[in-house]
Amino acid sequence: MKEFDFLKEKTIEVGKKLLEWREKEFTISSKSSKHDLVTSLDLRVQEYLYNALTKQFPEIGFFGEESGKDKKPKTSGYWVIDPIDGTVNFSKMLPMFCISAAYVENDEPKYGIIYAPVINQIITAEENKGIKYNDEKIIPNWSKSLEDAMISMGNIRGKTFKFFEAFETKVMRIRLLGTAALQIAYVGTGYFDAFISVKGNPWDVAAGYIIVKEAGGIITDYYGNRTNIFNKKNIYSNPYIYKDIIKNLQGVLL
Amino acid sequence: MKEFDFLKEKTIEVGKKLLEWREKEFTISSKSSKHDLVTSLDLRVQEYLYNALTKQFPEIGFFGEESGKDKKPKTSGYWVIDPIDGTVNFSKMLPMFCISAAYVENDEPKYGIIYAPVINQIITAEENKGIKYNDEKIIPNWSKSLEDAMISMGNIRGKTFKFFEAFETKVMRIRLLGTAALQIAYVGTGYFDAFISVKGNPWDVAAGYIIVKEAGGIITDYYGNRTNIFNKKNIYSNPYIYKDIIKNLQGVLL
Repeated sequence: MKEFDFLKEKTIEVGKKLLEWREKEFTISSKSSKHDLVTSLDLRVQEYLYNALTKQFPEIGFFGEESGKDKKPKTSGYWVIDPIDGTVNFSKMLPMFCISAAYVENDEPKYGIIYAPVINQIITAEENKGIKYNDEKIIPNWSKSLEDAMISMGNIRGKTFKFFEAFETKVMRIRLLGTAALQIAYVGTGYFDAFISVKGNPWDVAAGYIIVKEAGGIITDYYGNRTNIFNKKNIYSNPYIYKDIIKNLQGVLL
Repeated sequence: MKEFDFLKEKTIEVGKKLLEWREKEFTISSKSSKHDLVTSLDLRVQEYLYNALTKQFPEIGFFGEESGKDKKPKTSGYWVIDPIDGTVNFSKMLPMFCISAAYVENDEPKYGIIYAPVINQIITAEENKGIKYNDEKIIPNWSKSLEDAMISMGNIRGKTFKFFEAFETKVMRIRLLGTAALQIAYVGTGYFDAFISVKGNPWDVAAGYIIVKEAGGIITDYYGNRTNIFNKKNIYSNPYIYKDIIKNLQGVLL
């Protein structure tokens, strides 16, 4: 089986299992704190993917958010996995969370899969092949101007108000869904016109990165420079408004 | 058929149709603006429910967001309908939007239905019968303190930053999903701990109002006073944190 197809199959498989696991753990361990629950399920999803992927492709490294896997592998090709992106939403039963899975070669994402199991959305991209939403090719229908734009940002407690002060009268709407990976993917699908990451780790952004790129979006740092998945402060934007996003971001100090 | 069951059946029916209608209109009328599309589908959903409900129950008034139905009926009992709550999300293809349908008697909601067709969530409440999520009784698992709370607010362009300034370091997270009706219902299900409405119309809040009430939540104006669905600025909160919400809301001037 092709690597992309295998990664996609396993991501969807573990996403469905995650919902079952949550159901059971909520029932059987009501004494444990919400935090413990989430930690254990985060880990369980990661272990599931780690085992499946390294068994099938032992030559490919593994780079994930949880438990000792969070150092960049030395192999040229590696998986980048966020087992649950939007953990707080997950713990609160909000439907907006996802599994983010990507394959990266020489630090460049080659394909990525975002799977949101509750709302049943699968957003994927492969290099030079465009993006798919629930297995169908789509082309984003982005806003052409900042004033028509719907934008979004990552979580940065204590400074969010500065972002709103700078942007809320200049764009049509700002949304905060609480899952970076899914929101970056939504730039790719055209639901959002831009997402500003404020402390994005590689596992938060790797799948979204290739999705936005393949959709025809622009990814830069806050100053319009070339960037990569290791830079924590990036903008993921549609090509029409990215210069305006950068302009208005100057001086905001997120 | 019982009135509640009829309303629920029709709400779900038209929600499914809405997704079909959108699919077709996006295909056949690519020249018309997004705004026109949304207006026409908003109206179409409302007309569908208006026809179904008034044919079956001619003695009950109809109070809806669109097109000449937005005056409070003179009957003691009336339906309150928001055909698409979260219209901007809907137009941008974001999955967070819903149909909000309630039955109100002497200005008090007696039952309400929130249906989010893309994410397939049905949240309902009937007076003195508690709430249901996808047809199963649920009890909200709310945070006991403000610092553990996930809160949300309505859209108020140009002043959102003040709300964030007042709250973002005091709560765990703030989410902005862009649909008042669904977010109020999420207080009822326990996904959110509070929602602050800033310009809520009766059709935005009527279904959520009875959902929060039946879940055991507290609804007051910004000063902790008794309120109703006609007051645009209310808080919908879990019972543990509503006093803290009110305290911190003073002076914010939304």
